[in-house]
Amino acid sequence: MNIKTVYEIDLPSFGDKRGFLTSIEQIKNVPIEINRIFYIHHVTEDRGGHAHIETDQIIIAISGSFKLKVFDGTDEDIYSLNDCTKGIFTPRMTFCELYDFSPDAVCLVLANTYYDIKLSLRSRNEFINFLNR
Amino acid sequence: MNIKTVYEIDLPSFGDKRGFLTSIEQIKNVPIEINRIFYIHHVTEDRGGHAHIETDQIIIAISGSFKLKVFDGTDEDIYSLNDCTKGIFTPRMTFCELYDFSPDAVCLVLANTYYDIKLSLRSRNEFINFLNR
Repeated sequence: MNIKTVYEIDLPSFGDKRGFLTSIEQIKNVPIEINRIFYIHHVTEDRGGHAHIETDQIIIAISGSFKLKVFDGTDEDIYSLNDCTKGIFTPRMTFCELYDFSPDAVCLVLANTYYDIKLSLRSRNEFINFLNR
Repeated sequence: MNIKTVYEIDLPSFGDKRGFLTSIEQIKNVPIEINRIFYIHHVTEDRGGHAHIETDQIIIAISGSFKLKVFDGTDEDIYSLNDCTKGIFTPRMTFCELYDFSPDAVCLVLANTYYDIKLSLRSRNEFINFLNR
């Protein structure tokens, strides 16, 4: 792992004869307040390709699988997500790309802020220019 | 619909050639703060069968489908959930039962409180006794 600020979190999961329940309490199980959630579904192309200036996120493959490439301006890592009991913490100013979605994939994201497109950097060039401003 | 306090919410969803993104901001798009989320997955039996004394929830079929039976102590309703752009608001003191899960079903729940088993009523009898206390 090159990027020290991105890391995998084991989410509390409870299994019994009825199946599984995975539970996430803000601050307690993840290092953010959950102000917004969103999910990407019925995916037909690669997604992501941006960074957020003030938004910390937890990314979860709640169904199916996909890959996540993270870039901090210097180093890159790739995570293969296929287990809904794991989350990837991607802090603000991480450039994220999502790809290789399985047909049944749903990508759940927990975010500490509401959405504000003005606080997002929509390409690798825009991201690098912001870092070097 | 018999139970007036339970209702369906259209969640903001955005589709383009890449697929769909559904977004939920607390207070703004749902009438709760999101303090906890949990999801039920790899389901092998009926789930639910309890009510919460202080917890308001939004229930979403984020993948697949299932049925939700709600009971307020007098009336009952059944919702068929199969569209992740809809959520069912179930306020505190709604007895919820989940069943008829499809093999790929994942039930996502947004909750306004942390989990406290002492603030839950674990059977219909316990629920009715609490209402009549």
